[in-house]
Amino acid sequence: MTIRLLFESRSRLLSYLKPLKGYRTYSLQANPVSAPPTKSAQSTFLAGSAFGSLLGAGATYWLWQEEDEEDTGSTLKLEDLSPPQYCKDPREVGDAIIKIKKILGNNPDSFTASESELKDHSDTYFNTHHAKPSQRPHIVVFPKNTEEVSEIVKVCNEHTLPVIPFCGGTSLEGHFISTRVGCTVMIDMSKYMNQIIKLNKEDLDVEVQAGVPWEDLNDYLRDNGLLFGCDPGPGAQIGGCIANSCSGTKAFKYGTMKENVVNITAVLADGTIIKTKKRPRKSSAGYNLNGLLIGSEGTLAIVTEATVKCHVKPVEETIVVASFPKVGNAAACTSHLIQEGIAPNAMELLDDNMMDIINKGGATYRTDWKVAPTVFFKIGGRNENIINEVINQVQSTAEKYGCHEFEYAKNDDEKMELWEARKVALWSVINAGKEKDPNANVWTTDVAVPLSNFSKVIETTKEEMNKSGLINAIVGHTGDGNFHAFIVYNDNERAKAEKIVENMVKRAIDADGTCTGEHGVGIGKRMFLLEELGDAPVDFMRRIKLAVDPKRILNPDKIFKIDPHDDNDHT
Amino acid sequence: MTIRLLFESRSRLLSYLKPLKGYRTYSLQANPVSAPPTKSAQSTFLAGSAFGSLLGAGATYWLWQEEDEEDTGSTLKLEDLSPPQYCKDPREVGDAIIKIKKILGNNPDSFTASESELKDHSDTYFNTHHAKPSQRPHIVVFPKNTEEVSEIVKVCNEHTLPVIPFCGGTSLEGHFISTRVGCTVMIDMSKYMNQIIKLNKEDLDVEVQAGVPWEDLNDYLRDNGLLFGCDPGPGAQIGGCIANSCSGTKAFKYGTMKENVVNITAVLADGTIIKTKKRPRKSSAGYNLNGLLIGSEGTLAIVTEATVKCHVKPVEETIVVASFPKVGNAAACTSHLIQEGIAPNAMELLDDNMMDIINKGGATYRTDWKVAPTVFFKIGGRNENIINEVINQVQSTAEKYGCHEFEYAKNDDEKMELWEARKVALWSVINAGKEKDPNANVWTTDVAVPLSNFSKVIETTKEEMNKSGLINAIVGHTGDGNFHAFIVYNDNERAKAEKIVENMVKRAIDADGTCTGEHGVGIGKRMFLLEELGDAPVDFMRRIKLAVDPKRILNPDKIFKIDPHDDNDHT
Repeated sequence: MTIRLLFESRSRLLSYLKPLKGYRTYSLQANPVSAPPTKSAQSTFLAGSAFGSLLGAGATYWLWQEEDEEDTGSTLKLEDLSPPQYCKDPREVGDAIIKIKKILGNNPDSFTASESELKDHSDTYFNTHHAKPSQRPHIVVFPKNTEEVSEIVKVCNEHTLPVIPFCGGTSLEGHFISTRVGCTVMIDMSKYMNQIIKLNKEDLDVEVQAGVPWEDLNDYLRDNGLLFGCDPGPGAQIGGCIANSCSGTKAFKYGTMKENVVNITAVLADGTIIKTKKRPRKSSAGYNLNGLLIGSEGTLAIVTEATVKCHVKPVEETIVVASFPKVGNAAACTSHLIQEGIAPNAMELLDDNMMDIINKGGATYRTDWKVAPTVFFKIGGRNENIINEVINQVQSTAEKYGCHEFEYAKNDDEKMELWEARKVALWSVINAGKEKDPNANVWTTDVAVPLSNFSKVIETTKEEMNKSGLINAIVGHTGDGNFHAFIVYNDNERAKAEKIVENMVKRAIDADGTCTGEHGVGIGKRMFLLEELGDAPVDFMRRIKLAVDPKRILNPDKIFKIDPHDDNDHT
Repeated sequence: MTIRLLFESRSRLLSYLKPLKGYRTYSLQANPVSAPPTKSAQSTFLAGSAFGSLLGAGATYWLWQEEDEEDTGSTLKLEDLSPPQYCKDPREVGDAIIKIKKILGNNPDSFTASESELKDHSDTYFNTHHAKPSQRPHIVVFPKNTEEVSEIVKVCNEHTLPVIPFCGGTSLEGHFISTRVGCTVMIDMSKYMNQIIKLNKEDLDVEVQAGVPWEDLNDYLRDNGLLFGCDPGPGAQIGGCIANSCSGTKAFKYGTMKENVVNITAVLADGTIIKTKKRPRKSSAGYNLNGLLIGSEGTLAIVTEATVKCHVKPVEETIVVASFPKVGNAAACTSHLIQEGIAPNAMELLDDNMMDIINKGGATYRTDWKVAPTVFFKIGGRNENIINEVINQVQSTAEKYGCHEFEYAKNDDEKMELWEARKVALWSVINAGKEKDPNANVWTTDVAVPLSNFSKVIETTKEEMNKSGLINAIVGHTGDGNFHAFIVYNDNERAKAEKIVENMVKRAIDADGTCTGEHGVGIGKRMFLLEELGDAPVDFMRRIKLAVDPKRILNPDKIFKIDPHDDNDHT
């Protein structure tokens, strides 16, 4: 009796840890995923129960000693976790929702459970992995400030309801899927937390709420002669930019989100509000919490506000377009420029398929782009002399690598027109897909590799994609060794597309690269993350996650598994 | 009886958590720092013991429930910790050392406990806070590779011996003081783990061991037309650069260590070896463990190897020196240049005191520097046209701000001579101090503030320092809003110097800045970190620390307190 009670209580005490040695043996039958008991574990339990039957306290004391030895680690393996226990009782969920609505002043504009809204907050056309029809949030709430978010999260933590932060909803790897059915609370920042709080022009930073769309911020900064360093997908908002460590075409010059955040205000799993820094440009004061939170995909904290860096808009900037016989030449040319320390503000590669699709799609002012691997250069400087200096260097280098067409914008219209081709890439692929088949999907994925492996990995991936017969295209941030593949497929072709992506990712990992350069892991790339880093670093991440979110309520199941019963291994 | 045993075992189970509610009351007498019991705590305990006396198991079960409620948090307060229990038994320490020596092949060159070596590994002249004579490592070991470090740390974790990693020993805030006497194992990387493993020139990165001095790395890279992005104090080594998130004069152009690391190989508190990434330039795959480990001062992991970025050496680079009537003008000039998007490779401010000290010290080829606030600009570019373009912009801006002397290097010798003045700054102050008093110390500290507050904070700090009558000088990385104060003092003047530093740091924090821009927290700035961020972010850091290093063996007592009995509050 003593022992049974202890077991019950203990599994609540370290709620996330699977019962240990002596206990594991005991619960074998009940727990199919338990490792077979070790010899020592068996004797442990036998000794334990023997003691138990004689003297509860003695056995108790002794069993705990067993467990002491378990708590000296730095990592946390999936198999050592017990499944998370989210609130299953509809009545308790109902009570929690009542509390949450009260926090929101019972204002019907501040929450919704309408079919359409729940659907809009569960999936997108662009996701590489789609939510099951059942995987919808239980309620979507629209808080007005950090304090409301904190109060809501406190209720969720108390009642063990999963919480998923939502901003622009433009992520691609199923980042905001409500994997835990019937109890997920989604916190949408876009409705009321979308304000630019303060521009500190002299300090080159701006304070914003999480729901500010990056394009709006950029427009605002442009009027002040400044710009935002990242340019992720259209519609992305700052909270999501931070959660996913976004980047884009400007990262080569201005860095990714990791290099563009001064401070973050965030709500932790227990509702605690933290602000990571004040506003120094540079700091070595304590752990770099910006570094930890950026890219943690809402699994460690919910970003509510941030101060992000601004950059001075180049006085002059122009666009140059160069086309090459092969992707390899284009990549080699850009690598050479980097080696030489010639730094355009952006270097974007579009492959021959992409250029062909753009011509056919007619989304740009012209439809006669040369169908060849093409690099779009953004070249900036303080005056025309400097820009022309750089253009000459780029042109002579490009010609060395077989560039047969080199075109530059002579006026602002031409600049816009030339860059437009890069901007419409994704949409053009989608249109091409829809033309082929109204039910077509587009798989958008990305990898990044060391510069020296860039062209090889792209070439091999292109070959495989072309062989597949599926409509496909490649767009690359060549300066970062990062590229995207677009693959059009219908439901019958899904497996084929999946295989191409799997091979592409493995190719990137084999080339000393990463399974994702800027899209993040979400649900879709969890297995690849393990392949890329191996167990130990991911077990270290899991230990950190469980330490600061012991009830596993923050965006469950993203980046890595937190449930030993989670068998969702689709890539 | 049952209850007592449970209490004992429980405090071992969650070894770092102070016993909770019901228990806290029980241990009050024994524990002077315990908070007075709350009403509910008292009733809890009374209920608990009442049950206990009647039915052990029942009381047990019920007490655990109490504790369950405690483990849903995201932060960890100092007062909720029990003091760490390091190995106190000399015999057990001896046994552990025997195991460690065995790991090192019992090679006498691989470990030492000689008086002089222990002394050399306990403190430096430059530390702002000095070790007590007793605060020395028990042994210093010189492992040959990551695996040996891992095995050593496993032994330390098993026997609860503190472990402090050591590289160049150039840190300033007592980062490597052996605060835990009689059992600290210091792991020195500089003797055998000092190899440049591999340069990946095309990829612009280089793989190195932790013990490589950054200057050696830079020399090596220079021969390959490359450079290392950071330039911390002379003698610093890569492991320390990462642990302290160093930067220096080049950070304005190339970023701090946070922006210059591709991957880290590190040993965790339990001996687990992790490698944070492969070698992509850019990644959003999982938590940004680089971001977390850089700047964690050896409290989360021991860095053994890393891949760091290389930058292409500017084809042309020259030095320009401009002196101004006041620090304010100098700061305003550099801010204006930044606003205009004119980006020199470095902008270093030396105040009038500093220039005077340099003249008197005679450490540079000339002794007739104008005694006025002076900015040293490093201007780089791909050719002379571009450089002259930038020089003209800098000169005309400087003149706008009252610059009365503008000098530029006409040849390589002059470049070196001009920059030399910046390089000898610290040494010149030390010499000046020694001349005044052979027992003089130099306090070297730093803060960083938003650019718009830079000149104000410097001016006020200068005023106070000059009023004090102590020899002092200021050197600033103006592009980052980061500056250093040097204060010469003897033992009688220590309090005066301490007060100046305290006021300077508080001034920086009040100006929305940080208590340290690049030196780190160590022991010396723990209280300032709390003032800067408040409790919650530091409690969040502490929770992470205790989760991955539950026995608190990794560089104890640095950055924030981990022991409620730690009353070392000196600033």
